[in-house]
Amino acid sequence: MSPRDPQTRKADTLAMLAAPEIDVWVATASESGEAHLVPVSLAWVDERVVIAIPAKSVTTTNLTASGRARLAVGPTRDVVMIDAALERTVGVDDDQTLGEVYAAQSDWDPRGDSAYVFVVLRPVRLQAWRESNEIKGRTLMRDGAWVV
Amino acid sequence: MSPRDPQTRKADTLAMLAAPEIDVWVATASESGEAHLVPVSLAWVDERVVIAIPAKSVTTTNLTASGRARLAVGPTRDVVMIDAALERTVGVDDDQTLGEVYAAQSDWDPRGDSAYVFVVLRPVRLQAWRESNEIKGRTLMRDGAWVV
Repeated sequence: MSPRDPQTRKADTLAMLAAPEIDVWVATASESGEAHLVPVSLAWVDERVVIAIPAKSVTTTNLTASGRARLAVGPTRDVVMIDAALERTVGVDDDQTLGEVYAAQSDWDPRGDSAYVFVVLRPVRLQAWRESNEIKGRTLMRDGAWVV
Repeated sequence: MSPRDPQTRKADTLAMLAAPEIDVWVATASESGEAHLVPVSLAWVDERVVIAIPAKSVTTTNLTASGRARLAVGPTRDVVMIDAALERTVGVDDDQTLGEVYAAQSDWDPRGDSAYVFVVLRPVRLQAWRESNEIKGRTLMRDGAWVV
């Protein structure tokens, strides 16, 4: 398969992020340098990745301490990789709009479970590729701005 | 779908790890606490996860420094999660048996590219689950030993 052009990659990326019932791999690191990785549901809201996780999870602890995560969406051979910064964390019942949008895209609804928080992650760098012939030109966003 | 029993999960896990052209998400952390995540091909050799990556990659640097990685195999809703320890790193042309087995399972062959190394990762903890009803009973290996 020939490599997609930049505009197609961006369109495919935005479609994937807005797809119903889409999941994201969230990689974080502890202050002591231990990597953590979990799959969770995502919502794509105002160009932010929103996840819902327990406030006391390893991922939340790592994110709060480091302010950073590396995210992967899609299968290993049609991937969107995102380096993201923590924008904010909010209780799942404390932002009505976010709760509605999250529940609409995801296939579960964390609202009402006070153990959970929404975590809003701002993409800083975004890359998309399928096979090795798409490694070139994979960067679609740099320093938080689309380059395509 | 009802949750799988432990024996079925173990059999499914071993089948997935031995499948042709299977990939693994490799999460590592830098000494300064930055998470990295990449998808790469895997071979399952003598109950070890073997990957081939550039010797100078972020993943190799992190692995060498920390000795640890967190791995995910399979899609987000049929996942095998492995906490692994670095066992050894060897040039792709310096272990003939490993090279043959890797090339047989993977759909590419890194041999002949001196920039690449095989990294042999020993599973310490292994968990497998599909949906939330399989969270209970997800731990199939603990402290490097199968508990199923």
